[in-house]
Amino acid sequence: MIRILVTGGTFDKEYNELAGSLAFKATHLPEMLRLGRCRLDVTIETLMMIDSLDMRDADRARIVLACRAAGESRLVVTHGTDTMVETARALAAGAPGKTIVLTGAMIPYAFGSSDGLFNLGSALSFAQVLPPGVYVAMNGQYFTWDRVRKNRETGVFERVDTSA
Amino acid sequence: MIRILVTGGTFDKEYNELAGSLAFKATHLPEMLRLGRCRLDVTIETLMMIDSLDMRDADRARIVLACRAAGESRLVVTHGTDTMVETARALAAGAPGKTIVLTGAMIPYAFGSSDGLFNLGSALSFAQVLPPGVYVAMNGQYFTWDRVRKNRETGVFERVDTSA
Amino acid sequence: MIRILVTGGTFDKEYNELAGSLAFKATHLPEMLRLGRCRLDVTIETLMMIDSLDMRDADRARIVLACRAAGESRLVVTHGTDTMVETARALAAGAPGKTIVLTGAMIPYAFGSSDGLFNLGSALSFAQVLPPGVYVAMNGQYFTWDRVRKNRETGVFERVDTSA
Amino acid sequence: MIRILVTGGTFDKEYNELAGSLAFKATHLPEMLRLGRCRLDVTIETLMMIDSLDMRDADRARIVLACRAAGESRLVVTHGTDTMVETARALAAGAPGKTIVLTGAMIPYAFGSSDGLFNLGSALSFAQVLPPGVYVAMNGQYFTWDRVRKNRETGVFERVDTSA
Repeated sequence: MIRILVTGGTFDKEYNELAGSLAFKATHLPEMLRLGRCRLDVTIETLMMIDSLDMRDADRARIVLACRAAGESRLVVTHGTDTMVETARALAAGAPGKTIVLTGAMIPYAFGSSDGLFNLGSALSFAQVLPPGVYVAMNGQYFTWDRVRKNRETGVFERVDTSA
Repeated sequence: MIRILVTGGTFDKEYNELAGSLAFKATHLPEMLRLGRCRLDVTIETLMMIDSLDMRDADRARIVLACRAAGESRLVVTHGTDTMVETARALAAGAPGKTIVLTGAMIPYAFGSSDGLFNLGSALSFAQVLPPGVYVAMNGQYFTWDRVRKNRETGVFERVDTSA
Repeated sequence: MIRILVTGGTFDKEYNELAGSLAFKATHLPEMLRLGRCRLDVTIETLMMIDSLDMRDADRARIVLACRAAGESRLVVTHGTDTMVETARALAAGAPGKTIVLTGAMIPYAFGSSDGLFNLGSALSFAQVLPPGVYVAMNGQYFTWDRVRKNRETGVFERVDTSA
Repeated sequence: MIRILVTGGTFDKEYNELAGSLAFKATHLPEMLRLGRCRLDVTIETLMMIDSLDMRDADRARIVLACRAAGESRLVVTHGTDTMVETARALAAGAPGKTIVLTGAMIPYAFGSSDGLFNLGSALSFAQVLPPGVYVAMNGQYFTWDRVRKNRETGVFERVDTSA
């Protein structure tokens, strides 16, 4: 059993045709799991629907609490990419003993060309087999929370050496 | 480093607009990896482009040989779903000591509603973390080669108990 | 008011994931009109769901009859491209005095890369402004029924000179 | 022969994945015509790539001038929907004697669910058959420039009676 915690991010952004801008409505997770013909025993819980640049400490505390409170020991957290690593750090400190995989998308799922479905398949798979810990799954790869950063210029997540 | 062996299957079927039927052209794997913004060190090798119902023993022998000959110890094989389990069995017998993950799709990638991108993200992730063995990755799950079958009526892969 | 008569064709072909082949289910016309945000007063009537290569004289007679029986003087007929011109000829002989526009698609609408939505927008527009007669609307163009053929090698509809 | 004048608008908005916002790059018109298998003799000219809310009098003057200068007597102008009617008015005053059809989209073409392809098929068709004048083609319908407004609440173009 896996719990998916939804927090928003590019993943779930939609085009609001009356305002002519991007906005959040409901999460696309159920539709994505249907498209992927996913047969995992999954529970989806929407915690918030926000841009990760707007995420405050109180929001992160809520995510940590939800992970701790979850009956499942394996979780996937969908999250905006800009501060994903920051939330991963908060989870490593506050929700030990579980396998928690954060993932997101560079392009909204509602766009035809999104990386969201690929990332979701990847995150759910890593969540099933990795040992307890907090991970970021992006670009087909996984990173432990303390060895990753988002390169803002390329939009790619990359490994960092923390021993230095 | 991961090697992806392409054998065809629904994954790569396209609509041939002059003939009005489904057909194979080149594999969509490079495009799919680009869409998924995959940053893994991946080599793609097209072995054949056939429907898995048309796959003969000689074709399976070729797949086994390619897995054995590969320098990589982690491989993903894209394959039609109908005889995927049969090829998994051949690989278990003939290509030991490597992590080999077979995957496919129920809907061609070229269709908007394909499960292919989800499955590819899933297979590449399992291939990175599972111990040596032969696996089928479909529906967000992984199965060892000797404990899975495709349910032809539902189109879903399901676990079978082989101890009976 | 426009009546849309649905007869099947590539337009409405879907991928049957259990059989692994193309098949007809319900028409995509309502979904397409929704996507196009069409506000025309349109009635959709499904006459048959067949490949136009399988269309017999009795089928064409039914289409002619439906056009004649319609209260609307402007109609769009969705049709497989292979014998679209043949049905246009039958309509010219059997359903005079109305503006009838036949259209179709080279790629099924259910595929991401279909020309169907473009053709539907085109056909509905021509149907509103052309004088009574039978027309084929494909490739952004319109042709009177007796001056068009489908080039089987290129998949393109082209004008023919009938004065010769 | 038809000339397409590109001015931007929702039609051509893209998702900028590094900035996480909507932006203009190159026009999608060539790709859309290819998808629609359009065989019309069309010339595409990009005048500007802006949101129609940002359009100034000088921009409208440029569009009017381009329509007047065009060798073609039939033109399609892609345009943001918010001030499309305003530009139509300017064209009616400044570029008489030609058939000019303005069109746009409520959802960017780069999104899977865009009405753009439908509208383009529609606008190109109306441009071929309507007499000289300035028209708006949206929602499958056409309106003369002085009898249309965009309903901001519903996002739909509707006929207005100007005789009052």
